[in-house]
Amino acid sequence: MLVDGKASRTIWPAPGQDAVFVIDQRQLPHRVVVERLADPATVHRAIREMWVRGAPLIGATAAYGVALQCNRDAGDTALQETLQWLADARPTAVNLAWALQRMRLRLLPLPVAERAAAAWAEAAALCDDDVAVNQAIGRHGLGLIQAIAKRRPGPVRVLTHCNAGWVATVDRGTAISPVYAAQEAGLEVFVWVDETRPRNQGASLTAWELGQQRVPHKVIADNAGGHLMQHGEVDIVIVGCDRVTARGDVCNKIGTYLKALAAHDNGVPFYAAMPTSTLDMNLHDGLHEIPIEERSAREVTHLTGRDARGELVEVQLVPDGSGAANPAFDVTPARLVTGLITEHGVVAAQEAALRALMQERP
Amino acid sequence: MLVDGKASRTIWPAPGQDAVFVIDQRQLPHRVVVERLADPATVHRAIREMWVRGAPLIGATAAYGVALQCNRDAGDTALQETLQWLADARPTAVNLAWALQRMRLRLLPLPVAERAAAAWAEAAALCDDDVAVNQAIGRHGLGLIQAIAKRRPGPVRVLTHCNAGWVATVDRGTAISPVYAAQEAGLEVFVWVDETRPRNQGASLTAWELGQQRVPHKVIADNAGGHLMQHGEVDIVIVGCDRVTARGDVCNKIGTYLKALAAHDNGVPFYAAMPTSTLDMNLHDGLHEIPIEERSAREVTHLTGRDARGELVEVQLVPDGSGAANPAFDVTPARLVTGLITEHGVVAAQEAALRALMQERP
Repeated sequence: MLVDGKASRTIWPAPGQDAVFVIDQRQLPHRVVVERLADPATVHRAIREMWVRGAPLIGATAAYGVALQCNRDAGDTALQETLQWLADARPTAVNLAWALQRMRLRLLPLPVAERAAAAWAEAAALCDDDVAVNQAIGRHGLGLIQAIAKRRPGPVRVLTHCNAGWVATVDRGTAISPVYAAQEAGLEVFVWVDETRPRNQGASLTAWELGQQRVPHKVIADNAGGHLMQHGEVDIVIVGCDRVTARGDVCNKIGTYLKALAAHDNGVPFYAAMPTSTLDMNLHDGLHEIPIEERSAREVTHLTGRDARGELVEVQLVPDGSGAANPAFDVTPARLVTGLITEHGVVAAQEAALRALMQERP
Repeated sequence: MLVDGKASRTIWPAPGQDAVFVIDQRQLPHRVVVERLADPATVHRAIREMWVRGAPLIGATAAYGVALQCNRDAGDTALQETLQWLADARPTAVNLAWALQRMRLRLLPLPVAERAAAAWAEAAALCDDDVAVNQAIGRHGLGLIQAIAKRRPGPVRVLTHCNAGWVATVDRGTAISPVYAAQEAGLEVFVWVDETRPRNQGASLTAWELGQQRVPHKVIADNAGGHLMQHGEVDIVIVGCDRVTARGDVCNKIGTYLKALAAHDNGVPFYAAMPTSTLDMNLHDGLHEIPIEERSAREVTHLTGRDARGELVEVQLVPDGSGAANPAFDVTPARLVTGLITEHGVVAAQEAALRALMQERP
């Protein structure tokens, strides 16, 4: 997608295959800073400290981390250790494990000497596949937006939570991909952007990327979406997901569940955009089986923004002595999910439908 | 309640009855600054710009604004104009209109020369009545907390949204009054404090006042409450309210509705603490009849906190060019409300029950 009018991905290898470049998303929307990651330790740090975030982009970044390890030591022991270590950088998203498993299956059967070249090729292929998947999600989600546009005049009003846009992926995004597809198809579309406390991925990332593509949008407090739905101001909710279980429970950024409840209470369709790599057929009850990452209290008690002089400043929001809890994800039960927008089409959040989908497309 | 260990109200008249003192709540929790309001215009500004907020405290402050007007010109024309003008300072809370009506009924029948003294006395009585009402709400809410404490070991975990604590009132608070009553009764109690974007009244005010009274608590993002309820971490939700309709619809800070949905979905009791002055028997359908204040977009796009040097700094959160919407309240339908904690006892959020209550206590 566009950054200052110029097409860009969120991650790309150095021409010499000795590093990978990413946008440091902690500095968005105030500054576009490109970071060069030249070793697996820096890749691990970039994932853990959320220079990159978003389930698909985490997977792609980890894949390049494996490639960087292969440059140094592609032997079984070192490779297995790196695969395990990178998997632990973030516990909730299944794509990270999925991407590393793809690298493992590709590389371990090869002679050690061939692994580095294969790893760089596989990481690049994984990135291209991500873009293709997201394009397909956009096409299928576009159908949902077109159906709404036919029913009523004015822009189709999409509410989204967190950032599942292009900066959460290699390109195009998952939840926002249908919005870009609608824009390209000439449909009028408008996005309510949940701020998404505590890390403000909506206010800082989704708003930024929508602004860069000139998609009309407004930022709202996470508290506001229910009220807007009560008053008929939201036509469809589309969110991303970090892990989906076999029965269709959707694990996504904390607060998603509250929006799903409000959508259900007001008859607003609620969709999760789900690359099938996000589906974890080994899990059923998302509420009890998905590990929920508890992140630092400081993400709640402090916040970074841009001051009047243009400097990034961290400020404290709570009184000295007040602690905070910071669960990073929640689980929306399948019963609240209208459907899952996958690269193969829109599918019900039901075990039979998901099993059928995965059997058709192994 | 206590400020740095010393008992204080949120509002008190100057001994010479030429001004009223309030705590400037915009500077909490970082600084305790007392402001002297010496004329009706400053009172209007203090209400409109939220130096004071919270439905009961807004009413009390407006009452002193009328008293200040009576010092200058207590004639019918000037008094009526001031009553109307102060009523317009905030549109949603019914207590403001209620307090001004009380002042009107008390003052207009009097000779002009007697109005100033009567106004100061009536404003003081209104404040004392508020404290008595809040004490009674605390006693009735304590019963709910005691019942939970009997059922399970460990602290009773209360979730609250926004600030309906002592700083929202003259003293004691409404939603938090039962928490203080529980603490005084020797019960173990713990409070989950919703940050309450966009103005962060939870993170800055509720956390501050709980810390000052040494009540254990943690601040959470507004997004987190549903997840905590799904995992059995919340025993009861108690919120305040700005207006309640005859059928029990509860208008309160934006985001309350989302917590009520989550409480309902997880079998967690959801109560609003409601002085009967907050009940508007003229309204029925809260969703369509209560005017919802749309506040400045800047409350969403910018935020003030304390930097590392201890200075208050305003930072921008969204990219340049991204707008915001900022509805300040929402309406929780009566069907999601377990009960209303009033000064006369806990009552069902149902028209018959509310009419009976108001007929018994006119």
